[in-house]
Amino acid sequence: MVEVIFFDLDDTLVDTSRLAELARKNAIDNMIQHGLPVDFETAYNELLELIAEYGSNFPHHFDYLLRRLDLKYNPKWVAAGVIAYHNTKFAHLREVKNARKALIKLREMGYRLGIITDGNPIKQWEKVLRLDIDDFFEYVVVSDFEGVKKPHPKIYQKALKIFGVKAEEAVMVGDRLYSDIFGAKRVGMHTVWFRYGKYANRELEYEQHADFKIDDLLELPHVVEVLKNGSNKEVHTNR
Amino acid sequence: MVEVIFFDLDDTLVDTSRLAELARKNAIDNMIQHGLPVDFETAYNELLELIAEYGSNFPHHFDYLLRRLDLKYNPKWVAAGVIAYHNTKFAHLREVKNARKALIKLREMGYRLGIITDGNPIKQWEKVLRLDIDDFFEYVVVSDFEGVKKPHPKIYQKALKIFGVKAEEAVMVGDRLYSDIFGAKRVGMHTVWFRYGKYANRELEYEQHADFKIDDLLELPHVVEVLKNGSNKEVHTNR
Repeated sequence: MVEVIFFDLDDTLVDTSRLAELARKNAIDNMIQHGLPVDFETAYNELLELIAEYGSNFPHHFDYLLRRLDLKYNPKWVAAGVIAYHNTKFAHLREVKNARKALIKLREMGYRLGIITDGNPIKQWEKVLRLDIDDFFEYVVVSDFEGVKKPHPKIYQKALKIFGVKAEEAVMVGDRLYSDIFGAKRVGMHTVWFRYGKYANRELEYEQHADFKIDDLLELPHVVEVLKNGSNKEVHTNR
Repeated sequence: MVEVIFFDLDDTLVDTSRLAELARKNAIDNMIQHGLPVDFETAYNELLELIAEYGSNFPHHFDYLLRRLDLKYNPKWVAAGVIAYHNTKFAHLREVKNARKALIKLREMGYRLGIITDGNPIKQWEKVLRLDIDDFFEYVVVSDFEGVKKPHPKIYQKALKIFGVKAEEAVMVGDRLYSDIFGAKRVGMHTVWFRYGKYANRELEYEQHADFKIDDLLELPHVVEVLKNGSNKEVHTNR
């Protein structure tokens, strides 16, 4: 019997990757418009390399970009990048298609909802609040607040404890086969892999841990009905 | 002969203090709307005290606010505060009345313009770029970039060196009698005290260092004409 449905946040409920790409392109554009003496392709590719090496949460992307391009530090260019990046983020933050529709339907069906996400608690909460989806969720579990990241079993066990349910009463929905699906399956949860964004064809070595595979969040009501009827291992949506 | 006019940024060209007050009030409002269990007056006054103690650039205002209110840390409330604060800042950033008109007029009269400001270079540049006033200025001198703050003579001497002018060929315009007026006068610049905002009646012990006193930036073209005609010590606007 399923009682709680947990969601990953980035690229499951919030359209993060597409937004980040747009924000980075606008940042480079604005830096060039304010005098950065490099062409767009060179600067953008350097930024992508930098992000690949230092991670997307590294706080000095634009400073390091200038160093990599052998340019003197110029706070004007950095500010131009920061402004365009933030403006884009604030103006273009979107739900993943059908996220809100699916959340409404699942609440209507009586399910309790939660979020289990990695990242900085304030930044993750910012996305939830800016999208105005906080009222759907009983609790938002953020890894950097709990001190343990997905796919570590502890973050999933903490979430189960907070909701007071057993693993088999919970479903985890996420776009990452490794952190979301493998992680949740290891503690015994039901798992739904949402094939979306840049991880739609990655980490396939963990695919066997996905009980279900969906391409649209609106398939979720059907999936949980199947689980409710206890035939989860027989019927796999889209498989 | 005056050649260059330097401006302070906050509360001289950018209407910072009024904006900060509005942003803080909106932050508290939004925190309460998302469940902060404290009334507005209590929370706002605690925030003002905190800012008075830790400074307005302290990066953990909202975290510390929760501690001071004996509340458990809650990233949702902090995020609600941060969002409202930033939204306000971005939506309401304004020039000080007549700033742009005065800058246009001074450029038309042939003067070279600069900014000498304290603060974080990226944050200060953000204000300049968001207001789209950067094209008026040959150079923006920011203390945290130069490693020396107003009223230290070095920051004024650096500015003079960058522009290649002598102190008596430069005017400093600012709202702070201590950091702007006393600081610039010590190196020999002409000084114009712009009586505006919360410092309009403070630091009066440094008032003797102000050559001119104005209440509106549009008085500046007249002031520099007076200086040009060499009678600066006789005629003081509004004195």
